[in-house]
Amino acid sequence: MQNTPKEWTLIQKIRYRVQRHNDHTIVPLGDDAFVFKNFLGYSVICQDMMVEDVHFKLDYFSAFDLGAKALAVNLSDIAAMGAHPHFAQVSIAFPEKINESWLDEFYLGMSQLADKYSCEIVGGDLSASPDKLVIDVSVHGSCEHPLTRKGAMKGDLLLSSGPLGLSHTGLMALQKRLSDYEEAKKKHLHPRPRLDLVGALVKKKDKVHALMDCSDGLINDALQLCPEGAGLHIFAENLPLHEETSKMALELGIPAHEFSLWGGEDYELLMVISPDDYDLFSGWHLVGQFTETPGVFLTHADGKEEIKEFKGWHHF
Amino acid sequence: MQNTPKEWTLIQKIRYRVQRHNDHTIVPLGDDAFVFKNFLGYSVICQDMMVEDVHFKLDYFSAFDLGAKALAVNLSDIAAMGAHPHFAQVSIAFPEKINESWLDEFYLGMSQLADKYSCEIVGGDLSASPDKLVIDVSVHGSCEHPLTRKGAMKGDLLLSSGPLGLSHTGLMALQKRLSDYEEAKKKHLHPRPRLDLVGALVKKKDKVHALMDCSDGLINDALQLCPEGAGLHIFAENLPLHEETSKMALELGIPAHEFSLWGGEDYELLMVISPDDYDLFSGWHLVGQFTETPGVFLTHADGKEEIKEFKGWHHF
Repeated sequence: MQNTPKEWTLIQKIRYRVQRHNDHTIVPLGDDAFVFKNFLGYSVICQDMMVEDVHFKLDYFSAFDLGAKALAVNLSDIAAMGAHPHFAQVSIAFPEKINESWLDEFYLGMSQLADKYSCEIVGGDLSASPDKLVIDVSVHGSCEHPLTRKGAMKGDLLLSSGPLGLSHTGLMALQKRLSDYEEAKKKHLHPRPRLDLVGALVKKKDKVHALMDCSDGLINDALQLCPEGAGLHIFAENLPLHEETSKMALELGIPAHEFSLWGGEDYELLMVISPDDYDLFSGWHLVGQFTETPGVFLTHADGKEEIKEFKGWHHF
Repeated sequence: MQNTPKEWTLIQKIRYRVQRHNDHTIVPLGDDAFVFKNFLGYSVICQDMMVEDVHFKLDYFSAFDLGAKALAVNLSDIAAMGAHPHFAQVSIAFPEKINESWLDEFYLGMSQLADKYSCEIVGGDLSASPDKLVIDVSVHGSCEHPLTRKGAMKGDLLLSSGPLGLSHTGLMALQKRLSDYEEAKKKHLHPRPRLDLVGALVKKKDKVHALMDCSDGLINDALQLCPEGAGLHIFAENLPLHEETSKMALELGIPAHEFSLWGGEDYELLMVISPDDYDLFSGWHLVGQFTETPGVFLTHADGKEEIKEFKGWHHF
């Protein structure tokens, strides 16, 4: 869409902030489009949006963290394909309350995270917004062998790369303005995409039946991986809970596993493997199993309960 | 970001609307990311955002037209690189007033335009919006030889692929609720990206010194093409004006060329060539020339005037 003189000035400043040298660049940021030499293997693309007062509030999100998170949620999708990120495009519609130094911090947070993974910000759009801040990021990556959500079999195990429910713990602490809960808050405000695991996963790609990132809560996401007609058992006692999640659960008097089952935005990876290969994946947490009998069950030491009501954190 | 059950249902419906068979697809829509086999040549990516009450108003934009336009502005960027589009990702943040049938029409308009150019909608995001509708589209294309904005030389000619100012004529007619001006309104509401010209341009790529699409008005865009230290002469009598633009200029008592010089969103292509090659590009309109003497001038039959005040259609 049309640009204005104020946009051009901003674009110049942002370009200075984000531009890097990249061997694959053919036509850099600043033309009608960005042109690059393809990477080995397949291309992997994703795009994820964050809307003020739907996904975040500006009273607890700094510009720096928000810039990092808007990219992180996309890098997490790239990791979930067993891929590596290369280029990001960032569109941002910002209301009057957002000033240039805020934007500069936003792009600083984003480019620092991008740099960590040799990802470069190469385009996007800037617009005024009449009211709310909206950020939409797309990422282009590559992989030689995509690790998809499809491939789980009955009997397979479900593993998590890290604690589940910690981000939601942080969100509640932020919303309730609680002190402490520093790691939980950090997990929510500045999640790290699990790109660190991609190298090892790709080496064991034949053992990875299915992979995805956990952004909607364990149950909702695990159901995306569930083989047709299969059941899903979640092992309540096995759930990887961070101590801050246990502490909050105790304080609020709700079972800690509720945070893992329904709390989203952890951006850990969920992986499905054969029980035979369990010992190949040390460091991963066993959280469930796909079974012959349909239904979703929470398995305790003293029995199991069927889960029939599905919760989500409502954005609508 | 997190999805909700309502989002999943919508995503299913949209997938049905947009999914096509494509030989390059490795992992289709519905996984963490879309994976595809690369096309010949280089990759070309762009991303462009449209915000309600900044770029459009819903009282004169139908869902169908808006879907088409949100894609068209990106396809225009792809055309402006001498490239072909392949895949689009669409993020949309929509307020409560937007219902499912509206969204269905939106994706219908977009996918009809996409189909015309063998482009497929393969991902993106859906979110609630507290207030305004925001649409952000990214497109992935390919080219074997990018045609960039850089390369104009002093003495070169500036050509346009079609009428300039027609979209702004349409916008004014829509804003003032004027009857007639049907072609102008159509140009504004449902612009066609000039991908039809790409084949011929690529064949003459050595003659194309620079290329871009005209979205910010002729002057603002031509300045992006201007060689360092050069001047820009716009030939007032030569400007390709549509009869509806002339009619509106007459009715409003403003010079018709003002529409071409400052009105944006025509999404025609601007091309720079050597005067020696002018006869190779029939169908194009000569609109200006880059000169030795710096400055921006509007050249009339009876002399020239220097343009010192730069206008834009303000989005801020």
